[in-house]
Amino acid sequence: MTQPSDKALVPFVSVDNMMQLIHHIGVEEVLKGLAGYIEDDFKRWEQFDKTPRVASHSDVGVIELMPTSDGEAYGFKYVNGHPKNTSEGLQTVTAFGLLADVYTGYPVLLTEMTILTALRTAATSAMVAKYLAPKDATTMAMIGNGAQSEFQTLAMKAICGLKSVRLYDTDSKATEKCAKNLAGLGLEVVPCATPEDAIQGAQILTTCTADKQNATILTDNMVGVGVHINAIGGDCPGKTELAAAILNRSDVFVEYPPQTRIEGEIQQMDPDFAVTEFWQVVTGQKEGRRDPRQITLFDSVGFAIEDFSALRYIRDHIKGTDFFDDLDMLADPDDPRDLFGMLGRAKA
Amino acid sequence: MTQPSDKALVPFVSVDNMMQLIHHIGVEEVLKGLAGYIEDDFKRWEQFDKTPRVASHSDVGVIELMPTSDGEAYGFKYVNGHPKNTSEGLQTVTAFGLLADVYTGYPVLLTEMTILTALRTAATSAMVAKYLAPKDATTMAMIGNGAQSEFQTLAMKAICGLKSVRLYDTDSKATEKCAKNLAGLGLEVVPCATPEDAIQGAQILTTCTADKQNATILTDNMVGVGVHINAIGGDCPGKTELAAAILNRSDVFVEYPPQTRIEGEIQQMDPDFAVTEFWQVVTGQKEGRRDPRQITLFDSVGFAIEDFSALRYIRDHIKGTDFFDDLDMLADPDDPRDLFGMLGRAKA
Repeated sequence: MTQPSDKALVPFVSVDNMMQLIHHIGVEEVLKGLAGYIEDDFKRWEQFDKTPRVASHSDVGVIELMPTSDGEAYGFKYVNGHPKNTSEGLQTVTAFGLLADVYTGYPVLLTEMTILTALRTAATSAMVAKYLAPKDATTMAMIGNGAQSEFQTLAMKAICGLKSVRLYDTDSKATEKCAKNLAGLGLEVVPCATPEDAIQGAQILTTCTADKQNATILTDNMVGVGVHINAIGGDCPGKTELAAAILNRSDVFVEYPPQTRIEGEIQQMDPDFAVTEFWQVVTGQKEGRRDPRQITLFDSVGFAIEDFSALRYIRDHIKGTDFFDDLDMLADPDDPRDLFGMLGRAKA
Repeated sequence: MTQPSDKALVPFVSVDNMMQLIHHIGVEEVLKGLAGYIEDDFKRWEQFDKTPRVASHSDVGVIELMPTSDGEAYGFKYVNGHPKNTSEGLQTVTAFGLLADVYTGYPVLLTEMTILTALRTAATSAMVAKYLAPKDATTMAMIGNGAQSEFQTLAMKAICGLKSVRLYDTDSKATEKCAKNLAGLGLEVVPCATPEDAIQGAQILTTCTADKQNATILTDNMVGVGVHINAIGGDCPGKTELAAAILNRSDVFVEYPPQTRIEGEIQQMDPDFAVTEFWQVVTGQKEGRRDPRQITLFDSVGFAIEDFSALRYIRDHIKGTDFFDDLDMLADPDDPRDLFGMLGRAKA
């Protein structure tokens, strides 16, 4: 075997190494750390190349590439969305991502992102809730108890001081799984039999269901004044979770309007429906919550910059650890013009 | 360490394994095989999702994603283009690629593509020359003797019966390197001191230079009747190699017009400059060479479908071999909704 040069080796974080790294740091610490990286990147939102994700749709799902760059680093995520996968024993969403050096074009990190996406999505929700949720919010209704639910809950605990979560899912087995996973992590966990029960006393309402359809997980009369709605599950064309009347009563905050108008809850509304770009709240250019009776709504679809933040976080945190392998992924001959010669010399 | 399931493992072809696989099959056999896969995909061109590449430009280069899908498989390539890299001891172009199953969204192959791109670019040129070059073309002028030059030459030998190559580069060291690499491979190799010398007696003129500028590698008076021009190096905005007058005298064949009009030689021409989509020549809908005095010009910029063909080829040819490793890249919990539980169980 020929020996690749250092430049040809790309650090790779496998699923197992990602899990070990997370436990090494601590799940809540990782969520807080990610929220900090994401907040930092929201503060410099205008520095990024932004583009709606590049999607390839089929009858059963979608495969997407989500690239962005801050001029120094370039990142992209590969992610699929296949709602029917669950019934076949597969993940609805799997993902991996890559970070590269803009100056050389050489990749500098390849990592699993199925777990990392779950973490960054939760960290984003909690970072946003820190700005928008009512002061002293301590109770969240978690509607939809699938793969994202525990991460959402822990992030709200770690970042917003959540003390109690009220769980509801159309499938009680999902609620049982979520409650079991959250047991002993320092939260009151209350399984509920109906969505109406779940929202009792909750200042934060998180919806995260998986069906690809225009559903009404929250009806208008379920949403009282002063709450913060964290809507995660409306994230592709034809998939929404909230009654349109709720949107009309809420101040709606989004990541990147051109993408959210296609994929988010506001796909139900007119193209000029007023929204606030959340990064402007972080920079102080726009107000977040200004009134205890105001309903705030984070219409989250996930954006490439959040993945970029997560990739930066992992790049910085694997340094000096053993939680990665070096992948021989880039051909790097001694003489850059002599690719053929390198191939020839490998014959021996 | 937790044991990932089979579905979570993605076959990965490293640079070293790619080189070993190529030698196992034989370089010329690989070039012929790739040309066959590419030709098959050009025949079913209309079945593909096609989009111009997704580019992120900086002052010193570009990073691109090139996705496509035939409805069953989805492929994309990551590729950078940094002309200044050579002077810093790095590759101008590095690449890797991925193939996924459209039905599940799960990746099924990750592979280095720096070497594979060099092979598929050469295989495409030769497959096209088979249709467009004059009958019994036996001599090629190879102008630009960088990383692509030996691959172009060998592909023309393997697929078109080339017997003699005439080399020219502004840097004589590049010509020496190319001549040395081609020695003993069954071709007459003639280093030339000027481009005018290189084109003497050549029926195929291949230009493949690397400077990012509008250069004139071939002037109008250098191009006689009846030749086939294989223009490889005009492949990004602001980078061309041919005098516009040559284009006016030629029948121009392209891969995907929306991309070629931005990146190819025809970026110099009006937006309605007449071109033939080469796939229509393969299917018989359009004529290729129809006259021995005709000048044919393949204005090649590289297209995602060629990478897709190359990925299919590698997927099919690593089966039953040891030329790949399994990467633990996809989180795949027993219960797809229990990602958090999988993470928790990894703590032990």
